[in-house]
Amino acid sequence: MKITVLTLFPEMYEGFLNTSIIKRIIDKKLAEIKVVDIRDYSQDKHRHVDDTPYGGGAGMLMKVDVVHRALLDNISNDYTYTVLTSPKARPLKQVDFERLSKLDELVIICGHYEGIDYRIERYIDEKVSIGDYILTGGELPSMVMIDGILRLLEEGISSDSLKEESFNEGLLEYPQYTRPVEYNGDVVPEVLQNGNHELIRRYNLKMSLKETLLNRPDLLDERDFTEEERQLLAEIVSEMSD
Amino acid sequence: MKITVLTLFPEMYEGFLNTSIIKRIIDKKLAEIKVVDIRDYSQDKHRHVDDTPYGGGAGMLMKVDVVHRALLDNISNDYTYTVLTSPKARPLKQVDFERLSKLDELVIICGHYEGIDYRIERYIDEKVSIGDYILTGGELPSMVMIDGILRLLEEGISSDSLKEESFNEGLLEYPQYTRPVEYNGDVVPEVLQNGNHELIRRYNLKMSLKETLLNRPDLLDERDFTEEERQLLAEIVSEMSD
Repeated sequence: MKITVLTLFPEMYEGFLNTSIIKRIIDKKLAEIKVVDIRDYSQDKHRHVDDTPYGGGAGMLMKVDVVHRALLDNISNDYTYTVLTSPKARPLKQVDFERLSKLDELVIICGHYEGIDYRIERYIDEKVSIGDYILTGGELPSMVMIDGILRLLEEGISSDSLKEESFNEGLLEYPQYTRPVEYNGDVVPEVLQNGNHELIRRYNLKMSLKETLLNRPDLLDERDFTEEERQLLAEIVSEMSD
Repeated sequence: MKITVLTLFPEMYEGFLNTSIIKRIIDKKLAEIKVVDIRDYSQDKHRHVDDTPYGGGAGMLMKVDVVHRALLDNISNDYTYTVLTSPKARPLKQVDFERLSKLDELVIICGHYEGIDYRIERYIDEKVSIGDYILTGGELPSMVMIDGILRLLEEGISSDSLKEESFNEGLLEYPQYTRPVEYNGDVVPEVLQNGNHELIRRYNLKMSLKETLLNRPDLLDERDFTEEERQLLAEIVSEMSD
C-alpha cells in the first residue's frame, strides 16, 4: 500500500515515521509512506499557500489551486483514493480503518485549522475526521490514520494476532496482568495464575463482558449474545448487586 | 498549565513539539510540556518495562510497578489530574478538551497496544480515548490531546477567535473561499464578494446549517433553533427539493 500525505508541516512526521513500531512495518515493505510539502506547489515567489477569505473573517485559507496541484501531482491512477482531514465528517471507526487498509493508494490532504478553500471538496473522495474535537491541523489525524492502517497491514500477515482479534469481537479487552503477582495489595486473579485453559477462557470472556458493561455499555446494545455470554452476564449482574 | 507525558517513545514527540503552531504556544509560556521516558523507571539492569501476561496470550504487558513509579514521580500535588490513554473509554469530545484545558496539571500515561497491567487503573483519574479505533500506542492520542488543549489555551487569550468560536456554536463551519475568484469553473458565491455584512452573516449562517444537515445531521438533533435558523432551514430544504 502507498500512502501519500500532503501537508504544510512535513517536519512533524519525522519522529512518528522513525519510531520503532511504524518503522518496523515500513521496513517490512508493507507500506510506503510519502510526505509531500504542499508549499512546493505554490507558484508564488514567496511560496505563499494561503490568502484572506472572501466575505471577511479572521485567519487565512489554504488556496484551492495550490492544494489541487499538489493533489494532481500525487495521484498515480484512477484508483488512487483521496481524503481530506476535516472536522466536518463523522468520526472514523475501526471498520473505516479496515476499509482504508484495503486500498492500494491513499492520498491524505491535511487541512489546516484556519481553513481551506471549500472548492477543494470537489476533488476528493471523502472527508475524514478522527473525532468530534478541534485540532490545529490535519497532521495528527493523518498520523492516527496511518498508524491504525499500518497495524492492520502488519496484522494481516500475522495469523496469531488475527486470532486474538477475532476473539470477543465487539467487546472491550479483558484485564491483563503481569508480574509481580501482588502489587500494593492487588493480587493477580487466582484463575489466571493456574494453567486451566478452559477456565481462563471463560474467565476472560466474563471480564471482557464486565469491562464493556462498565465502560462502554453502548457497545452491548447491538450485540447478539451467545448462550454462554448470556449466562456470564447474569453472573456479573448478580455479583454486582450483592 | 503543565502537561507531562509518560511514554516508551519520547523521540516521537520531537517533530510535534517543534512544529510552528505548537511551538508558538509553548513559547508564549501558556503551557509547559514535559515528556518522560517510562523506561527510566525500570529497576531492571536491562531496563525492561514489560513482561508476559498471566494466563497466557500473545504480546507483553507494561508492568504496573514501573508505570506507577513514573507516575508518582511526576505528580506534584493532590490536584494533578492523571489519565491513561486506552481504547476502553468513550471517545473524548470538544467539551472534554475544554474541561481538561482548565486543569493546572495533567499527566498522560501512554498505554501500549500490547497492553498494560490492569492494576494501574487504580492509580489514575480517568481513562481517555480519542476514538473507536485501535492504534499501536497512546503516543498519538496524547499529542491529539495536547494539540486540542493548547489551541484552547491560546484562544483563551485571544478575544477575536473566541468571538468566532461562539458564533454558530454546535454547527459545522460554513464554506470559506479565497482567491482566485473562479477556479475550474467554480466561482466564489456572489454575496461573499460584496461587502454587505448583514447579508454575509445570514448567508454564512445558512451555509453552516446546510453543511451540518448534509454532513452531520446528528448534530442538529439536540439543537434549539432560533427563529432565523428555522427560516433558513426551511429555505434550504425547499431549495434542495427543487
